[in-house]
Amino acid sequence: MTSLLPQGFRDRLPPVADATARLEQAVLGAAFQHGYERADPALAEFEQGLAGRLKSATAQDAVRFVDPVSQRTLAIRPDITAQIGRIAATRMGHHPRPVRLSYAGPVLRLRASQLSPERELLQMGCELIGLDTVAAAAEIVGVAVEALEAAGVRDISIDFTLPDLVGILANGPLPIDPAQIAALSERLDAKDAGGVAEIARAYLPLVEAAGPFEAAHHRLCAFDAGGALTSRLDGLWAIAEGLKGRVGLTLDPTERHGFEYQSWLGFSIFASGVRGEIGRGGTYTIVHEDGAEEAAVGFSLYADAIVAAGLGEIDRRRLFVPLGTDPALAAAMRAAGWVTVAALEAGDTPEAQLCTHLLAEGEARAL
Amino acid sequence: MTSLLPQGFRDRLPPVADATARLEQAVLGAAFQHGYERADPALAEFEQGLAGRLKSATAQDAVRFVDPVSQRTLAIRPDITAQIGRIAATRMGHHPRPVRLSYAGPVLRLRASQLSPERELLQMGCELIGLDTVAAAAEIVGVAVEALEAAGVRDISIDFTLPDLVGILANGPLPIDPAQIAALSERLDAKDAGGVAEIARAYLPLVEAAGPFEAAHHRLCAFDAGGALTSRLDGLWAIAEGLKGRVGLTLDPTERHGFEYQSWLGFSIFASGVRGEIGRGGTYTIVHEDGAEEAAVGFSLYADAIVAAGLGEIDRRRLFVPLGTDPALAAAMRAAGWVTVAALEAGDTPEAQLCTHLLAEGEARAL
Repeated sequence: MTSLLPQGFRDRLPPVADATARLEQAVLGAAFQHGYERADPALAEFEQGLAGRLKSATAQDAVRFVDPVSQRTLAIRPDITAQIGRIAATRMGHHPRPVRLSYAGPVLRLRASQLSPERELLQMGCELIGLDTVAAAAEIVGVAVEALEAAGVRDISIDFTLPDLVGILANGPLPIDPAQIAALSERLDAKDAGGVAEIARAYLPLVEAAGPFEAAHHRLCAFDAGGALTSRLDGLWAIAEGLKGRVGLTLDPTERHGFEYQSWLGFSIFASGVRGEIGRGGTYTIVHEDGAEEAAVGFSLYADAIVAAGLGEIDRRRLFVPLGTDPALAAAMRAAGWVTVAALEAGDTPEAQLCTHLLAEGEARAL
Repeated sequence: MTSLLPQGFRDRLPPVADATARLEQAVLGAAFQHGYERADPALAEFEQGLAGRLKSATAQDAVRFVDPVSQRTLAIRPDITAQIGRIAATRMGHHPRPVRLSYAGPVLRLRASQLSPERELLQMGCELIGLDTVAAAAEIVGVAVEALEAAGVRDISIDFTLPDLVGILANGPLPIDPAQIAALSERLDAKDAGGVAEIARAYLPLVEAAGPFEAAHHRLCAFDAGGALTSRLDGLWAIAEGLKGRVGLTLDPTERHGFEYQSWLGFSIFASGVRGEIGRGGTYTIVHEDGAEEAAVGFSLYADAIVAAGLGEIDRRRLFVPLGTDPALAAAMRAAGWVTVAALEAGDTPEAQLCTHLLAEGEARAL
């Protein structure tokens, strides 16, 4: 069957494709109102440059091919965030900071991840480059929430994490063997109390620190004897303050999965009725070509999960225009907001054209 | 320089990326109002299936890679029209005809064409599958014009051609050696009177047939002694009738380039101020998996050419919100349609954030 698509690829058909496009418009439209202008990075780049800006796991999953023009290897982007960082660091390197950019487009992965079987995904989001302050992070989280609300997503909740938590503690008040940091992080992420105790008993309270935001924040404050986490905890509190009552808030300070390249803040976004997370973000660092580092914060949304949950659905009222109708009348109905579907031959019917209404005697009649 | 992109690839930056997205929304929004719902075909397919539906020249230019999952060769689409045909023939094969679909998305080519140096293009358009009647073709041309008008494109002109003209004449009233048809078509396309005369003197009047629509149509009617072109000429006249006074119309019956897979009708779209054509379309045939053929008609637009000509430009009024402003005030300004850009640190200025207005004492003041 030549109609079958490779595993992990699919066509979006009506009405899903329209719903997806409207979700993108709503999300990027809301971001645009906050000053985030759109960038559309190239779909393919030199593999060497792209790989240098990606986590190694992501770089390995890029589709590669040899370019007959340059005789070099090109890669199709497996992620857009890293491309936005490249643009901010190069062509927009002279632009005053912070730079606010939004994006939406397909990304391609040679292998599916464990979490999702898709190999082509529509990624959309915003990045604020040049700052990763509490104010910058609060703006990014706020824009993500507003963008989702604009797209009709309700009952949003945000789960915060502190990606560099273990590193900060291990290099400060609770020293452990540096070779053990990764293992400890893993066991904390898995909430494996026995495993944590085996490596460093002092970290045990972190196993129980996750939960509803305020209570978890209090537990973490109580744990933070040495004050090494004070700025992070104050920052988290300030960010949460601006969202209280509007979205559900939780804190899972040792959640690590997928936040490998985030610095002090990470967050996952959920919505009722949607399985799994619908987006994520956090603070991170972009590297300029001269090696200089620059702080950034951003979020990405996964459009397909949101649309699959029935959000962003479109109105499919369609008005059937019989053969011989004055074109000016159909145009007037479109100007009034109708979708018109013209009969093009004698046998055509409203039913065949999935129409809900019929244009008769100058009026739209429900069928 | 890792920031350089491969030849033929580029990033769209602000404000070009936003202008491009708005052009897409306007074009597909206008088409949606005529009943064209969106399909988003997969970016990659099995190479074998994709190549079978493309002109061989296009298939050769597809980026290919080996899929580690299926162990088969996949190709990134170099064209979306063929994918829309696949969808109409397979997953939407049971859908009553005609099927109306729209699309917009990137296509990738391993080699640039002679006409354009780009290897990544944004292709958008509409296809009407199941009919290629005069009424169907008139609808498609009309939707193309309306979509471009909705996007702010002015002074549109359409150049019609009859892609199968030479074949029809050669197999009818003006027989020539079948082996000579391609050569004759080429020389007619090049308006090479000497070359045409060498092959078949009877075709010479066609060299002079191109020009403003009505005059060219009259010359072609006078030439059509045998009546072999009557249905085509009547159809062309009916299509043009619906567009008169609204767009410029020309007829170049032997124009062939790029219309190799069109059947009786082809057209190119131009706009004043835009170099080269901004779109094209025509009637063609899609092939089902059982070998059955189905008529179709459609158009594609080239977004980048349109945006490069300054069309679809966006309003960049930006309101600077000083540090410490009540967030509710900024939200009220956004609700009133403003783009707000919040200061996130003390040193930030309206100038640095490319703002045109400043929020002061509850008002937007022009800077």
